[in-house]
Amino acid sequence: MILTMKKGYSEQELLQVVWQINEVGLETHVSRGSERTVVGVIGDTRKLSKDLLARLPQIESVSPVLKPFKLASRDFHPDDTIVSVNGVKIGGKDFTVIAGPCSVESEQQLREACQGVKEAGAKILRGSAYKPRSSPYSFQGLGEEGLKILRKVANEFDMVVETEVMDTREVKKAAKYVDMLRIGARNMYNTDLLKEVGKLRKPVILKRGMSSTIQEFLLAAEYLLNEGNNEVILCERGIRTFETETRFTLDIGCIPVVQQLSHLPIIVDPSHAAGKRYIVPALSKAALAAGADGMIIEVHPNPDEALSDGPQQLNIEQFKMLMKEMHKFGNAMDKGLAKIAVQ
Amino acid sequence: MILTMKKGYSEQELLQVVWQINEVGLETHVSRGSERTVVGVIGDTRKLSKDLLARLPQIESVSPVLKPFKLASRDFHPDDTIVSVNGVKIGGKDFTVIAGPCSVESEQQLREACQGVKEAGAKILRGSAYKPRSSPYSFQGLGEEGLKILRKVANEFDMVVETEVMDTREVKKAAKYVDMLRIGARNMYNTDLLKEVGKLRKPVILKRGMSSTIQEFLLAAEYLLNEGNNEVILCERGIRTFETETRFTLDIGCIPVVQQLSHLPIIVDPSHAAGKRYIVPALSKAALAAGADGMIIEVHPNPDEALSDGPQQLNIEQFKMLMKEMHKFGNAMDKGLAKIAVQ
Amino acid sequence: MILTMKKGYSEQELLQVVWQINEVGLETHVSRGSERTVVGVIGDTRKLSKDLLARLPQIESVSPVLKPFKLASRDFHPDDTIVSVNGVKIGGKDFTVIAGPCSVESEQQLREACQGVKEAGAKILRGSAYKPRSSPYSFQGLGEEGLKILRKVANEFDMVVETEVMDTREVKKAAKYVDMLRIGARNMYNTDLLKEVGKLRKPVILKRGMSSTIQEFLLAAEYLLNEGNNEVILCERGIRTFETETRFTLDIGCIPVVQQLSHLPIIVDPSHAAGKRYIVPALSKAALAAGADGMIIEVHPNPDEALSDGPQQLNIEQFKMLMKEMHKFGNAMDKGLAKIAVQ
Amino acid sequence: MILTMKKGYSEQELLQVVWQINEVGLETHVSRGSERTVVGVIGDTRKLSKDLLARLPQIESVSPVLKPFKLASRDFHPDDTIVSVNGVKIGGKDFTVIAGPCSVESEQQLREACQGVKEAGAKILRGSAYKPRSSPYSFQGLGEEGLKILRKVANEFDMVVETEVMDTREVKKAAKYVDMLRIGARNMYNTDLLKEVGKLRKPVILKRGMSSTIQEFLLAAEYLLNEGNNEVILCERGIRTFETETRFTLDIGCIPVVQQLSHLPIIVDPSHAAGKRYIVPALSKAALAAGADGMIIEVHPNPDEALSDGPQQLNIEQFKMLMKEMHKFGNAMDKGLAKIAVQ
Repeated sequence: MILTMKKGYSEQELLQVVWQINEVGLETHVSRGSERTVVGVIGDTRKLSKDLLARLPQIESVSPVLKPFKLASRDFHPDDTIVSVNGVKIGGKDFTVIAGPCSVESEQQLREACQGVKEAGAKILRGSAYKPRSSPYSFQGLGEEGLKILRKVANEFDMVVETEVMDTREVKKAAKYVDMLRIGARNMYNTDLLKEVGKLRKPVILKRGMSSTIQEFLLAAEYLLNEGNNEVILCERGIRTFETETRFTLDIGCIPVVQQLSHLPIIVDPSHAAGKRYIVPALSKAALAAGADGMIIEVHPNPDEALSDGPQQLNIEQFKMLMKEMHKFGNAMDKGLAKIAVQ
Repeated sequence: MILTMKKGYSEQELLQVVWQINEVGLETHVSRGSERTVVGVIGDTRKLSKDLLARLPQIESVSPVLKPFKLASRDFHPDDTIVSVNGVKIGGKDFTVIAGPCSVESEQQLREACQGVKEAGAKILRGSAYKPRSSPYSFQGLGEEGLKILRKVANEFDMVVETEVMDTREVKKAAKYVDMLRIGARNMYNTDLLKEVGKLRKPVILKRGMSSTIQEFLLAAEYLLNEGNNEVILCERGIRTFETETRFTLDIGCIPVVQQLSHLPIIVDPSHAAGKRYIVPALSKAALAAGADGMIIEVHPNPDEALSDGPQQLNIEQFKMLMKEMHKFGNAMDKGLAKIAVQ
Repeated sequence: MILTMKKGYSEQELLQVVWQINEVGLETHVSRGSERTVVGVIGDTRKLSKDLLARLPQIESVSPVLKPFKLASRDFHPDDTIVSVNGVKIGGKDFTVIAGPCSVESEQQLREACQGVKEAGAKILRGSAYKPRSSPYSFQGLGEEGLKILRKVANEFDMVVETEVMDTREVKKAAKYVDMLRIGARNMYNTDLLKEVGKLRKPVILKRGMSSTIQEFLLAAEYLLNEGNNEVILCERGIRTFETETRFTLDIGCIPVVQQLSHLPIIVDPSHAAGKRYIVPALSKAALAAGADGMIIEVHPNPDEALSDGPQQLNIEQFKMLMKEMHKFGNAMDKGLAKIAVQ
Repeated sequence: MILTMKKGYSEQELLQVVWQINEVGLETHVSRGSERTVVGVIGDTRKLSKDLLARLPQIESVSPVLKPFKLASRDFHPDDTIVSVNGVKIGGKDFTVIAGPCSVESEQQLREACQGVKEAGAKILRGSAYKPRSSPYSFQGLGEEGLKILRKVANEFDMVVETEVMDTREVKKAAKYVDMLRIGARNMYNTDLLKEVGKLRKPVILKRGMSSTIQEFLLAAEYLLNEGNNEVILCERGIRTFETETRFTLDIGCIPVVQQLSHLPIIVDPSHAAGKRYIVPALSKAALAAGADGMIIEVHPNPDEALSDGPQQLNIEQFKMLMKEMHKFGNAMDKGLAKIAVQ
């Protein structure tokens, strides 16, 4: 249920609303938007009698939430959420680029990658120490050794760094080393992992499962939000379809749909969607043009020798060329405007 | 099989190559590219003995065609094809906008639409007189009456005009009224229709079937090309997936893939992919950014009263706003550059 | 709108109902079920005033049709439709087997196939004279010559015979030669073809499009029924999904769903769904067990030399073995019972 | 790499083969089939020089493994694997039925369910104590309390019992209470969970992910096998497609394909595929007819009051009726024969 406060309410009146709702055993989430302040109510709202609602001060309107996701919905939180990761913002006017190799393979490899992507304009370094590979015989990541390398190299270059977590038992450990966590597409339905990461107060990228509807995607985000972690960044990375020329089919329409349904920022992963290097630039530019808040892209100093996902990683020169092209676009578009959809 | 001529060959030498291949009963297609001239050979190439190939003058290299489509492949025709429809070009540097209502409903409706889309910058008027509706109880189009209205209104505004054909028996009739034909997604596998339209010398938009792979899409184009109609424009319009928030899933990755595999221009239909008006602008801009050669978009003077596809049609104001935004983008990008993919 | 007659109505009362509805310009379809007789009303039912409805004699109830398909719906026609093709029944208690080669290739080939499938227990001979091939360079069928062979061989063996039609211009010609027509998956959305075949009074197999929902499938049947052809047999032949081990994914759940929504018989094509010979028997038996009314299966005297779809065709020995196994099943199941779904 | 022993080899010769391969640092898996004994070699087989291979005694042939999965492949293990769960066999001639409620809700509910499904002929009781729900606001299962109820009720009725595990931290705990574990579709890609369950010596049902290819499915099984747990039962439960009349699309073709590629038993979950009660019987019978080794089906004493998946659960009467029908089928088919695919 959503209560919209009248304009001109006082802080004390707001507190009174919250207090009276909490009194009957329901939770509240206050969202102070640029236009209005709303109080989201979660729980069995049949406990709220008409009587009680009538006694609440300064309430303009009461409306039910019809969507199955609540905290993730724009109804609950009308303004865009902007997540700040050690000073780097995701959401709002900027298009934030997260770049780096698929897997951390060595200190030397990550250092070259980090230097290259930083020079090209990336703001956050990516790299996986734990890898969810289809085959048990494929490289499974360096584990904690990889986390140490991520931290060390990020510090050297004064970069913000993120990594993937896969196992509930490793969440706290990984969180000690990096600035932002990532939940991969293969774990989007892993509700125990969602709950565990939800308990942290650390930004998290949640990738859409390859067969997830947009509604299930937002419900997975709801698991994180419901545990109290509000710093959630959604990531469209391609869905599984019958087409085999690309590794997955980037659902570019997911961007405007998510932006209408939810307040959470949404970025794109052009690398996994493409699966082939030559397709990555077109998907990256399409993401920017469609209004995404950023992208997470795989860049490797020497893709041909990568231990995972070589064919889809750009080398540093290719990434620099792409970023140059994208800057031209970015300057041309007032990104805020670009987000204004036709009503 | 593809024969690449040496640089500096003479016209007479080229003719000799063609003549000798025709002699053994094989067809030839000569493509004079900016860099090289190639001679495509179609038929059972086992008829070409090594001996005969050795006798051909000025041949630099002989290579097999491994793809199932030949005339549509970039191997056969290395340079981009640019289709000219009564002076309006599709392909090359421009992003060509085709706009108009889903169906022709009346002279008045089409006139308002045509005036609006022309003012906004569209170069070609769209409108269907024959409609492939899911239900036999839905509006099936005005038929020949609609074709007459299309011609009349296009003449009034000096616009180029296109329309859909569905039945082999109506192809010639429709071709008399309009400047360009369209084969819809539901008929992409209709090989008799492809052959009939292929016999014309008239530009044709071929839409990708909703469950067609990119390879099948290019094979459908091959049907048109094989009958001698070289003025084929491909159109990505969304594929069918499990996602239901959008009507179809626009396969934005289809653009770079088609551009690598084929020389034919490719445009995007953001309206059918979206299915909902508010999603159309993001898809349109993504198409431009990904390097498409244009778009075909539904615009109606009064979408709420449209006889078909109302929810996905923009009104004229919305279309003008979108075109303004897209011009900013278009200026920023050197479209030629945008097409340069990472090798 | 559906009007259910009271039990014990007289023929004259029924005529009066029909006459009064026709009077206001609406069409009627009378269905005499085993339990009740219903009168389906098609057209703008707002023309039926409450006043008029109240005057109709012996009407027990009036209910709206909420589904977009009407004539195909079980609401309109509560009893199962049984189609009789020159004495061979499809629908009801029997599991009817239609078998033969993918394409008619020669008189000799068809004769061997016909003899084999007849001996094994098939009731109807299949064979395509027109082929919708992905590539224009693949064998396109023998055309009218193939139709002649079909008729000749069927007569020799006293078999009922069917074939595919693809082009509106060939429908009447094909109908002269064969006992039953087939509309292929690639033409399920070809509404002009549906209308043309709907005008005939000849049984027709309608295959589900590879990306067609069950609702669209029933709407395509509605096109045939709406033109007056009531002898429609539906055919599930696999839908397109991400799985590539099979050519298509047989949607076995389509059978109970169609049987709940519609009165039309439904058969299965295990050959095109499988794409590989070794998968065909399991799909055939699953179709029988799930309650299908029959199957259409590809059998070739020498699959390795087939001009189309060789890898999925059984040879005659394999088909005989499969039929033997299926007879054991068929005897064990009271097929009528098998169709009784849990409420 | 697969080494096939000559017929008539001695145990000592086999040991010598294994020893010499282990000597160079490679792992071996010996499979004694009904026809032949094969030695599978895992690791970098470039270490095996031609010289060394020539010295191995009694080797008939050496062949590479081209599939990415090895231990799960039929090449490695030509005979069918039969898993025995406290005396109940899965695989081979029998069709084993696992039945019970979606979630354990109370002792009373599980007791009624267990009594009913046992009377009807089910051999194993199912029930989830941990539930992977799309929404955090849905019932998440009783947790350890549920595990206790499962054990208690199973003991009362002397039934074998299974349950789902979702979190690596709960695997050992759950394994103490039940006889067989289940990894759900949403966790098929959860490689850490696969590894953890692989370390146990306890039978496990592995469900196919809703967007998993058959190859990825077998690779997930490979994770379990590679950790040493050989008692793996595969479960087809429907894949995600565009069709919405059923919850998922049961991929019935998966059964013959898996049986060709792998030696592991495969069962079917008709309940989750159907999503609606009335569709469950047809899918169950299709599974039996297609040659599956069993099914896992949801049965609830009172589905309308179920805390999860009510619409797809059968009540006990419906389950008994279905089992009666299926027994008739089962008797008619020699299940061994049913599995013989056409070569």
